[in-house]
Amino acid sequence: MPELSQENLDGIYAFAVQLGKDAGRMLLDAARLRYSDDRKLEQDHVEKDNAVDLVTQTDEDVEAFIKGQIAAKYPSHKFIGEETYSKGASRAYLIDDEPTWCVDPLDGTVNYIHLFPMFCVSIGFIVNSIPTIGIIYAPFLSQLFTACRGRGAFLRTHDGPPQPLPLVRHPVPPMPAKAPSGCVFSCEWGKDRRDRPDGNMHRKVESFVNMAAEVGGRDGKGGMVHGVRSLGSATLDLAYVAMGAFDIWWEGGCWEWDVAAGICILQEAGGLVTTANPPDDPSTAPIEDVRLGSRLYLAIRPAGPSEMETGRQGQERTVREVWRRVRRLDYSRPGA
Amino acid sequence: MPELSQENLDGIYAFAVQLGKDAGRMLLDAARLRYSDDRKLEQDHVEKDNAVDLVTQTDEDVEAFIKGQIAAKYPSHKFIGEETYSKGASRAYLIDDEPTWCVDPLDGTVNYIHLFPMFCVSIGFIVNSIPTIGIIYAPFLSQLFTACRGRGAFLRTHDGPPQPLPLVRHPVPPMPAKAPSGCVFSCEWGKDRRDRPDGNMHRKVESFVNMAAEVGGRDGKGGMVHGVRSLGSATLDLAYVAMGAFDIWWEGGCWEWDVAAGICILQEAGGLVTTANPPDDPSTAPIEDVRLGSRLYLAIRPAGPSEMETGRQGQERTVREVWRRVRRLDYSRPGA
Repeated sequence: MPELSQENLDGIYAFAVQLGKDAGRMLLDAARLRYSDDRKLEQDHVEKDNAVDLVTQTDEDVEAFIKGQIAAKYPSHKFIGEETYSKGASRAYLIDDEPTWCVDPLDGTVNYIHLFPMFCVSIGFIVNSIPTIGIIYAPFLSQLFTACRGRGAFLRTHDGPPQPLPLVRHPVPPMPAKAPSGCVFSCEWGKDRRDRPDGNMHRKVESFVNMAAEVGGRDGKGGMVHGVRSLGSATLDLAYVAMGAFDIWWEGGCWEWDVAAGICILQEAGGLVTTANPPDDPSTAPIEDVRLGSRLYLAIRPAGPSEMETGRQGQERTVREVWRRVRRLDYSRPGA
Repeated sequence: MPELSQENLDGIYAFAVQLGKDAGRMLLDAARLRYSDDRKLEQDHVEKDNAVDLVTQTDEDVEAFIKGQIAAKYPSHKFIGEETYSKGASRAYLIDDEPTWCVDPLDGTVNYIHLFPMFCVSIGFIVNSIPTIGIIYAPFLSQLFTACRGRGAFLRTHDGPPQPLPLVRHPVPPMPAKAPSGCVFSCEWGKDRRDRPDGNMHRKVESFVNMAAEVGGRDGKGGMVHGVRSLGSATLDLAYVAMGAFDIWWEGGCWEWDVAAGICILQEAGGLVTTANPPDDPSTAPIEDVRLGSRLYLAIRPAGPSEMETGRQGQERTVREVWRRVRRLDYSRPGA
């Protein structure tokens, strides 16, 4: 297995940051064509799986650009992209120990089509199965999130210097003593809207209501979170957990290209990512690191110590409190 | 009742735009203190109604600034602000035909505390009970929305010229033929989390699920919306409907200072605002203009004509399809 020197990694990181900027610029330019005064034609978009799952030509163009840049600079690296991958026969998990780029050229496609600003490009670089570089760029928001393993995570905007993540860090606040109360909870309705009793949609909604309801409600499961947010972008959900803006993100159904960059950024910021699905004993089960291809994700923001516990203890306590309130979701890999 | 000349209105509009910029800058500066490297103290915040309802010192400082600027420039105008108002004995509806400023110095307080970018200042100017000027500035997003009755609505960002709203306008797209299918649906969980059977929280969630579920599901109420979004800011929800990024916003429980500016901006962009609560016969009841103090709002984005109908007909069709799927909410005015 090739070991990457620190010097090589620096070069790859710089390349990835520039690649993210260039790809985000392509997204922005294509979006602006739709409302420029020279009345260029609106982009075509075609339906993929159903009306909720649209793919634009921009998606494919940006992925082709990213793939070409990587192939030219690092021809020995593997590439997994959302668009090329989803046209394949299966969605088997293809990431191994080889240096691999895992890319979503456009996360938040529905937002992009409607010009809601919460869309981005997501570029992850994975070595020995570990997300090692993460770049997320939301050009409509002028927010560029970057991280490289061992070097911290940062947010750059259109002005001012790069800000280390989490933003509030003098000191990093502990998790709330009564978490999930006091937490901003991020979750997504997703694409599986089948009205099946005990199907994923209803399990999700039951979990959302448990997290939202007053303390003492829902037969003791009421979490009274500070707010419930749904952005329509798993990638930006993770970025905002890394930033400290969201305390908890809980989701099933997304794919490794949605989360590879975000997991790197969150872990470098000091966050925790594990599985969304509660184990049989949520109070005592070990809290394992997330499996990248698991499609089930629970993320907790970076946390500092309190007088009672370390930051990690606060995060783990929060994981267990979430697990107590959420249902298991059924997302497997097609063909797996 | 004083009639405002067009010239006077131009002057008030220019004043209001600058006021919004200055107030937004105060919000941004205060937010940045929390993560600047000179380690200034984090702001204090105190609990108001419950853990979800926080008010910061910044709220009060910004409202005092806005109120003072208006009093100095237009001493005859009335002022209603969220912070001063909510300290009063009642929340009676105080807007009459006098020129009145209706201001929320910080909408999205929970977001602001957590540094999630979806917060803003909202400044409405109301004449003869009609929202006549609206300014919404979200400084973390560099998004400034402005409108003046008869002069259109605009979005300014940190670069480029002001963009007329809705953004996509060559032509403005019609409402989807099978709306709410194809629509981005914006809704908020709000602060009333009481776990009462048939209480507001459960009525809201039932409505959300109807809008989200597959067509044919939910005993025919499934709306299969394109996406469900929750930002935690009623003001920005309205701004994004005006922009065309959200197709539908449905909400109960907010107040006139949350929506006065947004309603002006949405109406100037060509959108429709009526009541959230479905009438007895949603198919045929007249679709009346929203009452500003009603606390119940249903907003539909600007829409162009299709081969089958005018833009307004498409909006009204969408209103009726939403009314078919949502529950009535119980939000009255305390003391009313």
